[in-house]
Amino acid sequence: MYTLYYSPGAASLVVHLVLIELGAEHTLRRLDTAAGEHKRPEYLALNPSGLIPTLMVDGEPVTEAAALLSLLTERHPEGGLAPAIGTPTRAAWWQWTMFLANTVQPALRHWFYPEDVAPAGPSEAVKQSVARRVEAMFEQIDRHLRGRRYLLGDRLSSVDLYLTMLMRWSRYVPKPATDWPELRRLAIEITSRPSWKAVYEREGLSEWYPER
Amino acid sequence: MYTLYYSPGAASLVVHLVLIELGAEHTLRRLDTAAGEHKRPEYLALNPSGLIPTLMVDGEPVTEAAALLSLLTERHPEGGLAPAIGTPTRAAWWQWTMFLANTVQPALRHWFYPEDVAPAGPSEAVKQSVARRVEAMFEQIDRHLRGRRYLLGDRLSSVDLYLTMLMRWSRYVPKPATDWPELRRLAIEITSRPSWKAVYEREGLSEWYPER
Repeated sequence: MYTLYYSPGAASLVVHLVLIELGAEHTLRRLDTAAGEHKRPEYLALNPSGLIPTLMVDGEPVTEAAALLSLLTERHPEGGLAPAIGTPTRAAWWQWTMFLANTVQPALRHWFYPEDVAPAGPSEAVKQSVARRVEAMFEQIDRHLRGRRYLLGDRLSSVDLYLTMLMRWSRYVPKPATDWPELRRLAIEITSRPSWKAVYEREGLSEWYPER
Repeated sequence: MYTLYYSPGAASLVVHLVLIELGAEHTLRRLDTAAGEHKRPEYLALNPSGLIPTLMVDGEPVTEAAALLSLLTERHPEGGLAPAIGTPTRAAWWQWTMFLANTVQPALRHWFYPEDVAPAGPSEAVKQSVARRVEAMFEQIDRHLRGRRYLLGDRLSSVDLYLTMLMRWSRYVPKPATDWPELRRLAIEITSRPSWKAVYEREGLSEWYPER
């Protein structure tokens, strides 16, 4: 039994999606970020950085979306969202998990929070530089997907779900992920899954339907 | 049998350290970055981004230092560098692995490569902002280490080695990690291990002896 602290469309989305895909019993606790609920003492006691998500696992708070994806796939190996340890695609699964976590996600964060890196106010040059970096990453991933149904080949895994959440975030950058054909194809497939539709309904989301 | 493509003191250092700690048989291939060897076709065929390290695993190239740490700890569970799956500290190990990979390491990279985020040239404001972010992270980790010998408590794991490499990188920021007492204590302990001394000797490193 898990409890997920989430905010609609935040990094909690992929954890929510994975909980549903794995069939793992869980309850949801929505945080009202507009009201600053994620910066109140009750939440900071669980997650001192005030970031979203937090997942209660065996009564203990665990943070970092990418950590939660990895933890959940290994706690529920029967869900098949990661190659088993020792199998040939395991290294590629690790590589994609880390690349999305330490390169793609931070680059998208820079787009939304440029003040983190340019405190004097985001100059046009900084915004353009971030946009070019994001585009280079999508180009690289799109190229990898040519001839492959999923990032790891013919089998869906947690990294496809993670990538789709990040593609959703890119809807506001000048050239969003769905401008690339293979990325668009993957986005349509993942967002057509019952799990994605369930997350949209439960989080009250409506934006971003790549199939339209 | 592994082959590690490395450059002295680069992100390959922690992979090298973990290979030695695990007693995993390996050979080393030094890349001459000053000569641009990591941007030549032979290396780009293994690692299209031209980043360091690459580890050959069962004849296939695997990239991303954090992915390699995780992969190696699970391939060599007898080495004891990660809590076993399903044990109580496993979630904390995941959380630290991801926090170091997606928050601390990128922040330190911004210090060294500010043009990634401020292409017009690093302003004093950008450099100061990056320095403050790095300091806030070290403060947070130092606080966590009070009353704990290692990040996970009384047992050494791969995240302590990873943190020590990042502390080494911080030697050029205005307030390096070793200015915090608990971080300094951990740095002294890890750099006193035979594995650290072996890496220094094999990579030809001499800088950064926190014990002095």
